[in-house]
Amino acid sequence: MRRALALAVTPGVPLGPNPRVGCVLLARDGTTIAEGFHRGAGSAHAEVDALAAAGEAVRGATAVVTLEPCNHTGRTGPCTEALVAAGVRRVVFAQSDANPVARGGADRLREAGIEVEGGVMADESRAVNRVWSFAVEHQRPFVTWKFATTLDGRSAASDGTSRWVSSRAARLDTHRLRGLCDTMLVGTATVEVDDPELTVRDEVDEPVATQPLRAVMGLRDLPTDRRIFNDRAETVHLRTRDPQEALASLRARDRQHVFLEGGPTLARAFLGAGLVDEVVAYVAPMLLGAGTSAVADLGIGTIADALHLHVSDVTVLQGHDGEDTNVRLTMTPTHDHRSS
Amino acid sequence: MRRALALAVTPGVPLGPNPRVGCVLLARDGTTIAEGFHRGAGSAHAEVDALAAAGEAVRGATAVVTLEPCNHTGRTGPCTEALVAAGVRRVVFAQSDANPVARGGADRLREAGIEVEGGVMADESRAVNRVWSFAVEHQRPFVTWKFATTLDGRSAASDGTSRWVSSRAARLDTHRLRGLCDTMLVGTATVEVDDPELTVRDEVDEPVATQPLRAVMGLRDLPTDRRIFNDRAETVHLRTRDPQEALASLRARDRQHVFLEGGPTLARAFLGAGLVDEVVAYVAPMLLGAGTSAVADLGIGTIADALHLHVSDVTVLQGHDGEDTNVRLTMTPTHDHRSS
Repeated sequence: MRRALALAVTPGVPLGPNPRVGCVLLARDGTTIAEGFHRGAGSAHAEVDALAAAGEAVRGATAVVTLEPCNHTGRTGPCTEALVAAGVRRVVFAQSDANPVARGGADRLREAGIEVEGGVMADESRAVNRVWSFAVEHQRPFVTWKFATTLDGRSAASDGTSRWVSSRAARLDTHRLRGLCDTMLVGTATVEVDDPELTVRDEVDEPVATQPLRAVMGLRDLPTDRRIFNDRAETVHLRTRDPQEALASLRARDRQHVFLEGGPTLARAFLGAGLVDEVVAYVAPMLLGAGTSAVADLGIGTIADALHLHVSDVTVLQGHDGEDTNVRLTMTPTHDHRSS
Repeated sequence: MRRALALAVTPGVPLGPNPRVGCVLLARDGTTIAEGFHRGAGSAHAEVDALAAAGEAVRGATAVVTLEPCNHTGRTGPCTEALVAAGVRRVVFAQSDANPVARGGADRLREAGIEVEGGVMADESRAVNRVWSFAVEHQRPFVTWKFATTLDGRSAASDGTSRWVSSRAARLDTHRLRGLCDTMLVGTATVEVDDPELTVRDEVDEPVATQPLRAVMGLRDLPTDRRIFNDRAETVHLRTRDPQEALASLRARDRQHVFLEGGPTLARAFLGAGLVDEVVAYVAPMLLGAGTSAVADLGIGTIADALHLHVSDVTVLQGHDGEDTNVRLTMTPTHDHRSS
């Protein structure tokens, strides 16, 4: 299974709406017959990839696969049927497939007389497909809210100036994180006021080849000359103020990971709805003493109602050429009391 | 010299106004004759400590000492004379003594025909006596400003509640840092409003044996029933609002390291005067969205005037029993533009 998980994360596999899956076919004596992995939406699933490499030798073999074999015909046929047809004797898988259209693979295999064992290193597989698993289980995209703040909670000085609160290292890191998502989301106000292009750029400030979807939500009409509407990436205007509706609409577009980058108002709406799954804060060691708050009024009146965050990672982003050292905190809300 | 530095930081040496010093006496063949270290104000200096252990064997020896031997009679006699009298042939020292009353040791030794070499691992010795060196060179105590903040820059919720923004681990760590200082300083407002006892407590919340001086500054008279006036430690009321005056008055009391713990107003006064040498911030991964700002208005109107801090350390204080993980940032102001 360890090898199958390693295959799942083979470098260079393009990101897409499908999970990362690896498969190893073992002979009765434990030797490897063939390996396979999924190369992204539209291409063969890991099992079929491995079966193709194995040929006839697979009869009586054990298939070790990181995800429960799918039981439906999408852009490719069901893996369950391919495993049955190939004469596989036993299937060991890690994570169950929670996808309502693809689930039921284990049952189908058992019906066909194949010995099935699930849940082997399931957590490890889930970690590999963290966002995919979340989206499938919750039927909505995973939401990462990113914000930058001074040590005293400001995002801009009294006169509105804010270039730059974050260091260059923090800005580069933000682009890296944007690139790991499939959607960037802002509100109409941000588009009107800041006019961001909302693209992922590399270290030399060039837009990368594969850009996430740019989504803007809100009821206001937007001038079409805004940079978000340029041809660097696809853009969608979601005509709603409701985070739940916005996410449903993004889910319908096969989106799994939303990077929330709007201003405090948008963040408040998502926090208030309990729809923030991860918080990434860049803290700049800088004091302003006054100016725009990085976080909007959340309607919290007393310390007992504070929104607590569980810290999963603290990374120091060393400053170069005299720039500030920034600190990145990655967190998850410990309870969504604001959703009540 | 490495051994001498290790002797200087011998555990258990009581804190006091004197520097930590270690001394090794070497025979001509390089073997160690004796070692010594300074045990705090009033006791023998490191050189004298080592000489006492060596006896007659010291004639013609080399003394390796972390600080330039003193040349004055304080509570103990001058080390220079002791070294001369013992017949030491050569003295190697690390850090020069900048103390105006004790300096000149190297010159005195040379006059007496002793071979002298200074500056060997001087930076390492200065690091051991960081605060003492600062106080001697600047003729005022080193000032550490400590504050606690939520991730969004708040120290209390809208209704004034603030128990607890910091985790227990962060509060314990604060007591540890207090214990490394010789003075804790707050303003009269803090005493009136919060009535802190301002003692150093150990892990089981008991006051430690040696307490720093408790200093309160400001012109207001204070009710004598405030906890700061209890008999747990010495307390002094500095009748001034001027940070410079307050520090001069503490310097006159042999104070070297002030732990600034007052509210935002006191911090602003010290920051404004360019009299903060180190900033320790405890960041709690908690959002309030509103409430009291952890840092007062500093009169900064635009981002270019932001007070930047150089980050020297980032430490994650792991939370236990479901408590928040806090992050401690240790910083130094990169420029004191507010002092102009």
